[in-house]
Amino acid sequence: MGKTYDLIIIGGGPAGITAGIYSARQKLKTLLLTKSFGGQITRKSVPIENYPGLGPISSTELIKRFEQDLKNHPIEIETASVSRISKSGELFNIISKEGEFSSKAVIIASGADPRPLEIPGEKEFIGKGVSYCVACDGPIFVGKDIAVAGGGNSAFEAALSLSNYANKVYIIERGDKVRADETNQKKVKENKKIELITGATLKKVSGSKFVEEVSYEDNNTKKEVSIKVSGLFVEIGSQPATAFVKDLVEFNEKDEIVVDPKNCKTKTEGIWAAGDVNNLSFKQIVIAAGQGAIAAMDVSNYLSKL
Amino acid sequence: MGKTYDLIIIGGGPAGITAGIYSARQKLKTLLLTKSFGGQITRKSVPIENYPGLGPISSTELIKRFEQDLKNHPIEIETASVSRISKSGELFNIISKEGEFSSKAVIIASGADPRPLEIPGEKEFIGKGVSYCVACDGPIFVGKDIAVAGGGNSAFEAALSLSNYANKVYIIERGDKVRADETNQKKVKENKKIELITGATLKKVSGSKFVEEVSYEDNNTKKEVSIKVSGLFVEIGSQPATAFVKDLVEFNEKDEIVVDPKNCKTKTEGIWAAGDVNNLSFKQIVIAAGQGAIAAMDVSNYLSKL
Repeated sequence: MGKTYDLIIIGGGPAGITAGIYSARQKLKTLLLTKSFGGQITRKSVPIENYPGLGPISSTELIKRFEQDLKNHPIEIETASVSRISKSGELFNIISKEGEFSSKAVIIASGADPRPLEIPGEKEFIGKGVSYCVACDGPIFVGKDIAVAGGGNSAFEAALSLSNYANKVYIIERGDKVRADETNQKKVKENKKIELITGATLKKVSGSKFVEEVSYEDNNTKKEVSIKVSGLFVEIGSQPATAFVKDLVEFNEKDEIVVDPKNCKTKTEGIWAAGDVNNLSFKQIVIAAGQGAIAAMDVSNYLSKL
Repeated sequence: MGKTYDLIIIGGGPAGITAGIYSARQKLKTLLLTKSFGGQITRKSVPIENYPGLGPISSTELIKRFEQDLKNHPIEIETASVSRISKSGELFNIISKEGEFSSKAVIIASGADPRPLEIPGEKEFIGKGVSYCVACDGPIFVGKDIAVAGGGNSAFEAALSLSNYANKVYIIERGDKVRADETNQKKVKENKKIELITGATLKKVSGSKFVEEVSYEDNNTKKEVSIKVSGLFVEIGSQPATAFVKDLVEFNEKDEIVVDPKNCKTKTEGIWAAGDVNNLSFKQIVIAAGQGAIAAMDVSNYLSKL
């Protein structure tokens, strides 16, 4: 059992960072464990227009500002990849490759990872044309043709961003309708480089060394169609990053941690979950930040009553 | 019946502004009605350190940035003081001195007003030494002795801010313990101009033309104590601004609008409430902003199903 804290926060995205700021202001002895800062923001490839007070801002700049705000407060931060949480007596033990830490309360704010398509060729071509991060890999595809899988805001924003580099971008969506908001739909419609293909179920990724082609089934005709592309960006949503806490809290059918929406408390005493990792409906930066604040304030109330 | 909108937002604080940004991005035909911008932020007298991404920032600057972000989006804004909401058929009618407007959905984000002490002399000396806004009236009291009523963060922050102008600041709190967070308690303790008096129930404000004295009862000795001050800042919390909606939604015992914490929906179909006006526990800028986003996204889902 390592050093003991009042509160350990797992995650360095908007929820974890805001929880850290609030916890430090309450003078709780706090440790924040994260692999890196930014969480889901790091995968944003277009300027963020909907975090109030910071107008349109690049993801890099927003993360820098969040991180700086956190570091202006009295809080310990460790770069660590948490592998397991267990309970022993009144304390939680947080186990990571980098060390072991204990605390009276835990806020899980570990966010979510991109969801894979799980089709043949996808895994094999990761880093060879298949990517889950436009902000990271987009600039490689100057002058190329690319496909984006998905029909939500992240797929549409990926396509818009890629259109700055690529020759042509196909958005391939399984459903007949897209879920992207009206602003993004309008921008895509007005962009001559982007072609939207709906009712198309991706079937495989192929190529020799690098991606050369993706194939989908047309849901109406049931025919398989192949298109020549150098890259495939998978933007079909995310799955909560919760492997380290499997048997300790309650999950819903999407593997999200179930919390009380009033205070972000899980059903396990002493554990809270904030941001994209929990089961609350709307996944947005400002909402995740709000939840981080709520969780930290509730932890403070809880600890003062212990 | 005036012009008809998809959504009318009442309030120009963090919740209303964020709801406006999100609603505009969803391309809802939106009208925001407010007397002014900033809501509770306008009464903040010390730099705001806990809105993530904007480090320590003055209230004026934060409001300016929020307002600018809102105005960058396609939304109609009217300066109006809402007096009543009524329902007629499928629409809500919003009645104000400035005009009448109709909408399919309403987000109430009208925030809260300062709560008065309700002691003799308080009302009479408003503007003559009694104030509910340090940011507005603090600078008048250069070199004077002042009292602040309250024991929470807003009272402590008021005292800290006033100590920049005043000769001496008394914090007068009825309870034996204060509710301000540890950061603020420490700052107050270290500030030689501030004296904290607990267990003291304020009884009256007196003077001739302007405030000259406040009197409190010592809860232990039951004796009345008077102190010479030129001003009294009342910082004992707030009461939700809901007079215009009295018979349309459900309230709790604090007159806050009861909402479902998952989506900020009231029990009245078509009406949402976000920010300090509702019954959710934690009143913070980033939390109110998060609720504004949640409400607007939920309204968008609701309208698309109508």
